[in-house]
Amino acid sequence: MPNAVPALREAEALPQPYLLFLGDITEPGYAKTAFGLRDWAAERCVGEFACEGATVSTGLPWLTPAQARALGARSMVIGVANPGGRIPPAWLPPLLEALHAGLDLVGGLHARLAAIEPLRNAARVHGRRLIDVREPPPGLPVASGRKRTGRRLLTVGTDCALGKKYTALALAHALRERGLDADFRASGQTGILIAGRGIPMDAVVADFAAGAAELLSPDADPAHWDVIEGQGSLSHPAYAGVSLALLHGSQPDVIVVCHAHGRERVLGHPHYALPSVEETIDLALRLGARTNPAIRCAGVSLNTGGLGDDAATRAIEDAGARLGLPVADPMRGGEPFARLVERCLA
Amino acid sequence: MPNAVPALREAEALPQPYLLFLGDITEPGYAKTAFGLRDWAAERCVGEFACEGATVSTGLPWLTPAQARALGARSMVIGVANPGGRIPPAWLPPLLEALHAGLDLVGGLHARLAAIEPLRNAARVHGRRLIDVREPPPGLPVASGRKRTGRRLLTVGTDCALGKKYTALALAHALRERGLDADFRASGQTGILIAGRGIPMDAVVADFAAGAAELLSPDADPAHWDVIEGQGSLSHPAYAGVSLALLHGSQPDVIVVCHAHGRERVLGHPHYALPSVEETIDLALRLGARTNPAIRCAGVSLNTGGLGDDAATRAIEDAGARLGLPVADPMRGGEPFARLVERCLA
Repeated sequence: MPNAVPALREAEALPQPYLLFLGDITEPGYAKTAFGLRDWAAERCVGEFACEGATVSTGLPWLTPAQARALGARSMVIGVANPGGRIPPAWLPPLLEALHAGLDLVGGLHARLAAIEPLRNAARVHGRRLIDVREPPPGLPVASGRKRTGRRLLTVGTDCALGKKYTALALAHALRERGLDADFRASGQTGILIAGRGIPMDAVVADFAAGAAELLSPDADPAHWDVIEGQGSLSHPAYAGVSLALLHGSQPDVIVVCHAHGRERVLGHPHYALPSVEETIDLALRLGARTNPAIRCAGVSLNTGGLGDDAATRAIEDAGARLGLPVADPMRGGEPFARLVERCLA
Repeated sequence: MPNAVPALREAEALPQPYLLFLGDITEPGYAKTAFGLRDWAAERCVGEFACEGATVSTGLPWLTPAQARALGARSMVIGVANPGGRIPPAWLPPLLEALHAGLDLVGGLHARLAAIEPLRNAARVHGRRLIDVREPPPGLPVASGRKRTGRRLLTVGTDCALGKKYTALALAHALRERGLDADFRASGQTGILIAGRGIPMDAVVADFAAGAAELLSPDADPAHWDVIEGQGSLSHPAYAGVSLALLHGSQPDVIVVCHAHGRERVLGHPHYALPSVEETIDLALRLGARTNPAIRCAGVSLNTGGLGDDAATRAIEDAGARLGLPVADPMRGGEPFARLVERCLA
């Protein structure tokens, strides 16, 4: 696969700005990546494009690849995921059109762009790249365990898919709003597309996972903050190893524990009870202290997406009183979130 | 690399018996793999072979590949490791001779056999296989967390390279001597060569590491024991993620904690103090309870290789009194080891 390019080679960024590709989908739930890019990287998205018959829109202007290229776009990003992560035949004409128009293609699906022969051929003919953000960079090191300069915050979950990425994005944004130098550090596909760089922790060979996490947040200015996107959960029966490698390699000074209000079972593993927030804090501090003895928990990010405003406020207050820590839903912001941010900096 | 074959495809075993290849080395320390095979798989080793000028011997009969083939050998195993894990040019003639004589080649070095063109060509011409035991099997699943039938024992270390493999081999041997149905389950290269099968946990992609561990010790008869080779340490700054994935996926009923008497710093990471045996037991039981709430620690395997007999006996007795658990050095055996085995079965 001669056109396959890993997502991050040294600190190389993805080609931006993006044109967002929405495929042929009619179900908004499959367009999470596109919505995430619109919400968190709007200034680097020139517009959207899709197959005929697609009905989902991000609200960004509709542009053909040629129009997007003329407006400065450098790549078209696949912003949707089918169940199974395949690239259906209907997507080929628009993908080829993008290559023809001078855009690189960027994808994060299970199916690799470079595994599709017509795309490979067109990329070669047009001198374009097929970039799969699920490909970890080559030559990852074994972790050294050496303490790095700069400050680090890691979001740690009670489970998968409950807001670790959004919490890290919101915290990085809030730190920058306070005039601090802060970077969001992406450890998963969507985060990498948003940040324009990062390492897909789940795709790294196990022996190098902590080393990859070290590479993800390198030495920095003592006042600089890296806000690192967490993965999985230390209590997850399938992914705890990834979470521990990320915790050790990130050597965070601060953790924020992420939980979804009302979730009681592990997503996709209903025979496993979710660990409590208290247990998750305790375990993360115990394990994290191995590479950073000064680790502390600043508070909890509580996903109250399923609740009305009053119920959400009550859930946040109840959890805060129970835990004796700042609790906030970053999507709702307000005073609770400001207190959580302050505690991160304390 | 059309001749590359993963080490374990389903439960396929390596081609045995072996001819052991000792390269061109003159330093016994580089022949650990060959010595391990002689010690633990002697009945599946027909003899040894080496380059001219090599001085290290396992004591097995010297055989040419053709003689070994005539005695039933089916593969030649690279039983030595150079610093760097390379295959020097001087090894090529004997490796080609083995392929010509009808033997497959089995290697566990960093350098892949199938990456060497003359070997690839000769393997194709002679219809032989180049098997790299560092290649994990394809199609590994994400862990399910489902409780499996049969009984499982995992060796858990305070560090790397202090006897987890030898302890597991000795325990599996002792269980079989007591008439029990027991298998040694290999999770590293040398262990895989000894067992003739297994999964190299360190080479698995992180998201599938616990799933690989589940595959390594599948459902079995309720009275059957799998004795699983541990990897790394839960407190290791580089490899803890691998250790946790192996612990979760193995869902052991029993752990035996392995420690080297007198070791105080993490091997290769001298700025890290070794965790105590007590801390290692406590952490492994807490984390392991996630996938097997009935997990217990049967005792400690204490590597006393650096001590004389009297000092070793004293070290074993002192540790046993301090911990209130059976402590033994499996290499010394005797009453202490018998007590450790009994406690595993209790």
